Amino acid sequence: MLKQILEQGRAAADAALERLLPAATEHPTSIHQAMRHSVFAGGKRLRPILCMEAGRMITAVSLARASRAAAVASSPCYASEALADIAPLPAGIESLGAALEMLHTYSLIHDDLPALDNDDLRRGRPTCHKAFGEAIAILAGDALQTQAYEVLAQLRCPAEARVAIIREIAHATGTIDGMIGGQVIDLEAEHKKPDLATLEYIHRSKTAALITASVVSGGLYAGADLSDTDLSDTDSSDTDRLRIYGQSIGLAFQIVDDVLDVTQTSEQLGKTAGKDTAAEKATYPALFGVEESLHKADALVERACTQLDKFGDRATTLKDLARYLVARKN
Amino acid sequence: MLKQILEQGRAAADAALERLLPAATEHPTSIHQAMRHSVFAGGKRLRPILCMEAGRMITAVSLARASRAAAVASSPCYASEALADIAPLPAGIESLGAALEMLHTYSLIHDDLPALDNDDLRRGRPTCHKAFGEAIAILAGDALQTQAYEVLAQLRCPAEARVAIIREIAHATGTIDGMIGGQVIDLEAEHKKPDLATLEYIHRSKTAALITASVVSGGLYAGADLSDTDLSDTDSSDTDRLRIYGQSIGLAFQIVDDVLDVTQTSEQLGKTAGKDTAAEKATYPALFGVEESLHKADALVERACTQLDKFGDRATTLKDLARYLVARKN
Repeated sequence: MLKQILEQGRAAADAALERLLPAATEHPTSIHQAMRHSVFAGGKRLRPILCMEAGRMITAVSLARASRAAAVASSPCYASEALADIAPLPAGIESLGAALEMLHTYSLIHDDLPALDNDDLRRGRPTCHKAFGEAIAILAGDALQTQAYEVLAQLRCPAEARVAIIREIAHATGTIDGMIGGQVIDLEAEHKKPDLATLEYIHRSKTAALITASVVSGGLYAGADLSDTDLSDTDSSDTDRLRIYGQSIGLAFQIVDDVLDVTQTSEQLGKTAGKDTAAEKATYPALFGVEESLHKADALVERACTQLDKFGDRATTLKDLARYLVARKN
Repeated sequence: MLKQILEQGRAAADAALERLLPAATEHPTSIHQAMRHSVFAGGKRLRPILCMEAGRMITAVSLARASRAAAVASSPCYASEALADIAPLPAGIESLGAALEMLHTYSLIHDDLPALDNDDLRRGRPTCHKAFGEAIAILAGDALQTQAYEVLAQLRCPAEARVAIIREIAHATGTIDGMIGGQVIDLEAEHKKPDLATLEYIHRSKTAALITASVVSGGLYAGADLSDTDLSDTDSSDTDRLRIYGQSIGLAFQIVDDVLDVTQTSEQLGKTAGKDTAAEKATYPALFGVEESLHKADALVERACTQLDKFGDRATTLKDLARYLVARKN
């Protein structure tokens, strides 16, 4: 079941990326080839998949609430929730997933540049600047960020939801507790003895923030909170729950990434292994060892899943995805 | 009068940038210092000023149409249009101007990098990578783009207008007839004999596209086209007119920039003069000579002004700005 979700999700994200990125033959061709080189390099599309499944869960929850409300209005018995359990993906949400993947890829292209991590290999292929030169790689990263916002502005959801999504994603990829801020501190922490506070800041901002935004924006796309009429002051909103789920799995994901960098070969990872140790980077295994790091990742996944208990069976896929993220081997 | 518009516009844009950019003391400080170093380097804020004045003109036009409609409904005489002639700036439009300046500055930081134009001096100060190193300069450019979209998503205009503005700006700064596309062709055209088609493509995409988006987005912010009830199939919409005005002054602006690179010293320009010739860049003076280039710029300004004749006296400032752009000396 999860395998099917992962495969279908990746196919849907890939199809949307194919449709939303300029063709490699489009003028000026060099930049479009470079963008496509890095986007179509065999990524797992985890961010689009998390986004789409969050959207599907919120759709199912909203349908159930609507049918319950209708049933309460017309009869004393609750209506069957069977229909809601097989909720489809919200129409067009794969474009949101594609925009998230463009932003993720832009960050990888720029991180790999000689002035930053200076990496030659990414997902088993030459990095963008190795294949196209530094100038085009810088511009290809820039252009993927730009293209992401052009796509987001045209999503098939109400304009109010679109601006909420753009705000969420821009903040998550910015300098304050966001992706760029994490990258800056990561650079500045190299060759220093890692401390836990710095390490957590880096992981939360550099990796977990965009994963969180992927989940939250998927919920916003599907109208999260709009149908939540039970919401009291003391209860968490649907978006709050998605946010804590996202932050927890995002941090767990990065801990496992750090562990794999130590325990796997470059061939298994499809990227240069052992480079964190070489750069004396702040990592969880460097601070806690491999076993304790994996325990921490498991605890974060349990925390993530508990947040979704309120949604019952409709949260099964997101819970399975959380567990998959820490069990993966590359 | 124009001097006052330029000074007040620059002050309003600067105040908005001061408010909307993270403080230099905000963690992580290095990136925020780098962003501010390049943003507050004495720019003329032409894009924000064009944006705000387009917004002011459309506001004045809408007020006049509304008062005329009200007068027609209640009396056979047209109401006085005196009030409309001193229309204020639409509330909050300076934030849109600030976002445009962030995008312009991001493009300058990345253009100056060693892998691209490799420039040490910009507006009379060390370029971002000279002052902060290449890694932080790449990330500061990235972050200014991100911050621009976070600001645009929260503008004080209806969500429908915000997504229209974001779409317009993202397209204008992208790879297809936009800023990045122009930069790519500019890079690839170095050390080749310039031809007019390539030159026009570079200028229209690299410079004129963002200037056009500045003018058009200012109009959209003020509700352009919404009040234009006279619009027939054969007439141009307010936005169409602003677009042709923007394209014309944008191209004229770049022609004059190329001419100044030949005729002025580095000291007069506040940036390295003569670098186009050194890099054998495609420029108007290289193709047509200085005098003929300036004739072409003048003709473009006249074309721009003609587009605004329909708006009467309310277009005076935009027309003055167009003439100022070709008369400037730095």
